[in-house]
Amino acid sequence: MAKHGYTIEQLMELAGLSVAASIASEYPKGRVVICVGPGNNGGDGLVAARHLNHFGYQPCLYYPVQPTKDLYTRLLLQCQAHGIAVVDDLADEVNKCDIVVDAIFGFSFKGTVRAPYDETLSILRGIDKPIISIDVPSGWDVELGNPQGVGLSPDMLVSLTAPKLCANHFAGRFHYLGGRFVPPDLARDLDIPQYPDSSQCVRLL
Amino acid sequence: MAKHGYTIEQLMELAGLSVAASIASEYPKGRVVICVGPGNNGGDGLVAARHLNHFGYQPCLYYPVQPTKDLYTRLLLQCQAHGIAVVDDLADEVNKCDIVVDAIFGFSFKGTVRAPYDETLSILRGIDKPIISIDVPSGWDVELGNPQGVGLSPDMLVSLTAPKLCANHFAGRFHYLGGRFVPPDLARDLDIPQYPDSSQCVRLL
Repeated sequence: MAKHGYTIEQLMELAGLSVAASIASEYPKGRVVICVGPGNNGGDGLVAARHLNHFGYQPCLYYPVQPTKDLYTRLLLQCQAHGIAVVDDLADEVNKCDIVVDAIFGFSFKGTVRAPYDETLSILRGIDKPIISIDVPSGWDVELGNPQGVGLSPDMLVSLTAPKLCANHFAGRFHYLGGRFVPPDLARDLDIPQYPDSSQCVRLL
Repeated sequence: MAKHGYTIEQLMELAGLSVAASIASEYPKGRVVICVGPGNNGGDGLVAARHLNHFGYQPCLYYPVQPTKDLYTRLLLQCQAHGIAVVDDLADEVNKCDIVVDAIFGFSFKGTVRAPYDETLSILRGIDKPIISIDVPSGWDVELGNPQGVGLSPDMLVSLTAPKLCANHFAGRFHYLGGRFVPPDLARDLDIPQYPDSSQCVRLL
C-alpha cells in the first residue's frame, strides 16, 4: 500500500477503527482489556482502544513492552488523552473485564513466544472471557494456524484487508473482515467480499 | 489535537471518512464531483473521494491548484490508485454529475475569493445539483455566514468536530456532524451530541 502513497498512520487508523466496529457489532458495552504487543498488531490495538472508548466501552491497556518509536508513543498518548489506563496486573484485569482484545502478534509472527508474552499467552489461554484477535490469533502461524497449541482460541477473529490462510482453522463464533482500504479493482482480484453501505467491517461467518 | 499526539493524516482520514459516510446516509449512489481547494478542507475532500469510491459512488476531482506538500501529493496518489480521475472542465462535469462536494475553503477562509476559485464559486452558485459543503460552505465567513452573497448554498453541511457559528445560517436540508475524534470528556464540555453506535457521523437537523 505504501507505493500508493498511504502512511502507516492512515492505514492503522482505519484498521483499528474496523476492529472496534466489529466488536461493537457483537458484544454489549462493557470493560475491555486490550493486550498490546510490540509491533503493528499492537498499534492496531491502541487505535481500537480509542475508538471503543468513543463507542461507549471502558477500555484499558495491558502493554508490557512499550516501544519508543514515534508511531507508538503517539498512539499511547492519544489513548491517555481519552483517559484510557495502562494496567499492570493482567490476571486481575481479565477477571474484572467483559472481553479481551488480543493485539499482541500479527501476521509476521514466527517461531516461539518469548518473555514476557509467554506469560501473557499463558494467562489468556486460561480465561473464560471472550477473546477478540486482530488479523491472526497470537501464537498462531499465519499459514499453519495453531499446531503447537501455544496460541489463543479467540471467540472473534477480525481479519484485516483479507483473511490469512490460518483463518481456516478459526473455530470461534464470529469472523469479521476489516481494513476497508484496498482499492476496489485490487479487492475484486483478491475476491474480497462486499462491505455493506459505509460500514468499516463485514461479517464473514 | 496535536498536543494529544495526533497526526494530521489520522484526523484527516477520520474527517474525510465521516464526510463520505454522511453523504452515503442521504444521497443515492451516483457520480460525484469533488471540488478540492488548496488547504486542509481540500485534503478532507480527497479522503472523502476515496471512501466514496469504496462505498460504490463514482467520484472525480476538480483540483485546479495542486499543492506540492507531501500530505496532499500522497492523498492525490491514493485517489489515483483508486482510478479517480482529475477533470479540467468543471462546468461540463457538474452537468453530468449527481452531486457536488465543496471541499474548497474551510473555517480559516477570510476576505475575498481569489482566482481561480472566484470562477469555481461562480459556476457552483449557478447549478441545480445538490452541493455538500465540508465544515464551512466555501465563500462563507466562519462566524458571520454569507453576508456578501459570494458563498455557496449547500444542500448538506457536514460540520467537523463541532458546528461553527456560521452553521446557524445554513438553510439546506441536511446538517451532519463528523470527525468523531474529540476525546469524550472534552466532547461533553463542548456539548457535542452523541453519535449512534459505531457511526462516524450523526445527523443534527
